[in-house]
Amino acid sequence: MARVLTPQAEDFPRWYQDVVAKAQLAENGPVRGTMVIRPWAYGIWELVQRGLDDRIKASGARNAYFPLLIPESYLRREADHIEGFSPELAVVTVGGGKELAEPVVIRPTSETIINASLARWISSYRDLPFKVNQWANVVRWELRPRLFLRTSEFLWQEGHTAHRTPEEAHAFALEILEDAYTATMERDLAIPVWRGRKTEREKFAGAIVSWSCEGLMRDGKALQMGTSHELGQNFAHAFDIAYTDEHGARQRPWQTSWGASTRLLGATIMVHGDDHGLRLPPRVAPVQVVVLVARAGEGVLEQAGRLVDDLTRAGIRTELDPHTEVSVGRRIVEWELRGVPVRVELGPRDIASGQVPVALRAQAVKTTHALDGLARAMPAILENEQDELLRQASALRDRLTGRATTIAEAIEQARSGAVRIPWAALGPDGERRLLDAGVSVRCLLREDGGLPDDPDADGVEAIVARAY
Amino acid sequence: MARVLTPQAEDFPRWYQDVVAKAQLAENGPVRGTMVIRPWAYGIWELVQRGLDDRIKASGARNAYFPLLIPESYLRREADHIEGFSPELAVVTVGGGKELAEPVVIRPTSETIINASLARWISSYRDLPFKVNQWANVVRWELRPRLFLRTSEFLWQEGHTAHRTPEEAHAFALEILEDAYTATMERDLAIPVWRGRKTEREKFAGAIVSWSCEGLMRDGKALQMGTSHELGQNFAHAFDIAYTDEHGARQRPWQTSWGASTRLLGATIMVHGDDHGLRLPPRVAPVQVVVLVARAGEGVLEQAGRLVDDLTRAGIRTELDPHTEVSVGRRIVEWELRGVPVRVELGPRDIASGQVPVALRAQAVKTTHALDGLARAMPAILENEQDELLRQASALRDRLTGRATTIAEAIEQARSGAVRIPWAALGPDGERRLLDAGVSVRCLLREDGGLPDDPDADGVEAIVARAY
Repeated sequence: MARVLTPQAEDFPRWYQDVVAKAQLAENGPVRGTMVIRPWAYGIWELVQRGLDDRIKASGARNAYFPLLIPESYLRREADHIEGFSPELAVVTVGGGKELAEPVVIRPTSETIINASLARWISSYRDLPFKVNQWANVVRWELRPRLFLRTSEFLWQEGHTAHRTPEEAHAFALEILEDAYTATMERDLAIPVWRGRKTEREKFAGAIVSWSCEGLMRDGKALQMGTSHELGQNFAHAFDIAYTDEHGARQRPWQTSWGASTRLLGATIMVHGDDHGLRLPPRVAPVQVVVLVARAGEGVLEQAGRLVDDLTRAGIRTELDPHTEVSVGRRIVEWELRGVPVRVELGPRDIASGQVPVALRAQAVKTTHALDGLARAMPAILENEQDELLRQASALRDRLTGRATTIAEAIEQARSGAVRIPWAALGPDGERRLLDAGVSVRCLLREDGGLPDDPDADGVEAIVARAY
Repeated sequence: MARVLTPQAEDFPRWYQDVVAKAQLAENGPVRGTMVIRPWAYGIWELVQRGLDDRIKASGARNAYFPLLIPESYLRREADHIEGFSPELAVVTVGGGKELAEPVVIRPTSETIINASLARWISSYRDLPFKVNQWANVVRWELRPRLFLRTSEFLWQEGHTAHRTPEEAHAFALEILEDAYTATMERDLAIPVWRGRKTEREKFAGAIVSWSCEGLMRDGKALQMGTSHELGQNFAHAFDIAYTDEHGARQRPWQTSWGASTRLLGATIMVHGDDHGLRLPPRVAPVQVVVLVARAGEGVLEQAGRLVDDLTRAGIRTELDPHTEVSVGRRIVEWELRGVPVRVELGPRDIASGQVPVALRAQAVKTTHALDGLARAMPAILENEQDELLRQASALRDRLTGRATTIAEAIEQARSGAVRIPWAALGPDGERRLLDAGVSVRCLLREDGGLPDDPDADGVEAIVARAY
């Protein structure tokens, strides 16, 4: 059989390009670095959004929408912020047929424009905590684009909060990291992530502390999947946000911001995909079960339709594949490529015996199941598939993660995966030496997996790796 | 009592500005014509989106995402299209710190960039019909902005389809108009709309026929609330979209596009709002019932909490207002301003008697209801409120709609509302004369309310009005 994709072991980046193209996930837009997200990938994104949005709302944030276009002068108000984003900006100089008096930029992120609103909305301690989120597109000009991972335009959510104390801001930044991001990644996307603190060098432009979730891809490279920042009072000063406290004194709030993007789709592809294509966690699969009519015959189509109805009624996203004019083999290749978790095959003989083949994408097995009761059994089958993907991803991550005590060892081991090394053995100087070798510190965490309040305390480890 | 809003009868545009500001719906962004959509209004938008998105998906369209940035040359490929949009474009000339070789525009609509993709995706008759939708922001530079109604950036959905025959494209354009747009407007937003055909002068830049849903606001001005276009083969030629039919011959598809935007929020405000503020149809109210603790007392807060739980379990979006430190009167003014459909007031005496005041925003009455069973009764109460708003809006539209047989009569009557006039009495010349008087033809429809295939046939009427 002709191979559908370049094997991962042969050329992983090529495999990624192949699967993105052949599973009809995305393609390049005409403007350099932009991306068309095709319906199958967008369907996954809608499910990722729904889960994450529910968790964000559970944190008390409400959604809003802020303008795409920001006066350039706004970005200049916070020195680190403009320095960080300046090289990536897209600038609009003409509007409505006229040269603009002041150029405006397309938002690379919305701290500045949101804080200009917060300065009007926050005036009393009763207004705090203030929590807002938006789902939006942002533009950061990208010279070496890669679909879903680094694109000039991407979709994301960005949350912004204001609190009365630094402790409360700190706690909320970590709450989002754990209850919104980690929960979405591990429970919905079946991807285990390291949660840790960014180094001074890697933190967000304008933050005092940045936290992140980091995943490990099948090729041993890391991917930053979500970040949560403590902004201190930097933007509150820059945009003159102040409130009156219970005693009538004027105070500045402490702020956070946090974001996760369509990168999550890239992570899902690179953590679960295999040489046959995508493997989708059932919770984010636009089609969870395909009922494939393997061979036409008396009553087969009717039986298939009934099964689709039963599954749909059981709350399962189901699609019928009745295209017997195309060979079974070719259709199976296509459904495996797209990563549908469960495939039920129906032919005249299966219906006669009352036992039907059920192929499980994650476990890579084909079992048989009584047709009677199959719809009732399906939620548990799907849950098993979901668990199986997380189990496999965790095992793979363990296998691809080494330990080192010296910088040389770390560089050596990072050729094939992630490395844990005491931060004390590294420090900012070691971090620079790693970078010269193409390896970066993804995050700092405690040996027990906890989050370090003080990165220079005993027992703090760095996760280092080559990264996307 | 100090008045909260400028009365509608005194100054309707001022009333609109007041309610948008004081109900915390939206505010101007720093770049001319841009808009911040605040959480309360965005919450309404999320519910409008959900209903419309479900209906769009039921039509067979799937969501996808296409780039924000479009090469300027793409827009030039369809002559009418570039002519229509040229004066409104925002142009990016600098990206990543460098002058761009070819300027790119921010999408004013996505026909061009989507059709560039369709040219790659469509090759066989098996690929048709092709139906795709996207939720996105677009930019059309606006010199006289008005929040929600005309802004330089707005949020919308735009659907794009390709069909084998002009008849199928025609039928689909009308299906969306009726089953997606009209259903959303009438059932969810409780706004009666006229469905009709745009005149040649008013049709979309690049379409062969445009259809629209038109609403009538409380001040007698019309608002275009959604449009559905038959594009013929204009874009198929411009972007070289072709497919092979069953007989092996090369054919060009027939296309449609259709959009509805955050304008729908402006319509909801201007159709239902009164001198006390917004009145929200329950289906799109972020909070459907507020349980207001009128006066503190033994067990009141507990009882209120229980009621909130019961209502929430019954699937009703409920909020507790426990803020007895603020006067009841002030809080009632606030909830009426925000347009929450039902307000339940709880105090010690109400709980003792087992009978509680229930204020209905649409009917403007305060009834009492047994506390026991109130949660069970609430879905029907909310449905009544929903129906009541549609009934009131329909009655108001009837009252504000006249009939004329001459152009002079039409101009006279359009001072206070919409006017039905035979299209034969008007024609393109009459349309121009109306425009000179600030009155436009909103759409053409048959006397029986049906849609005219031939605008010049007998019995075709024009709805004319001043318009937003």
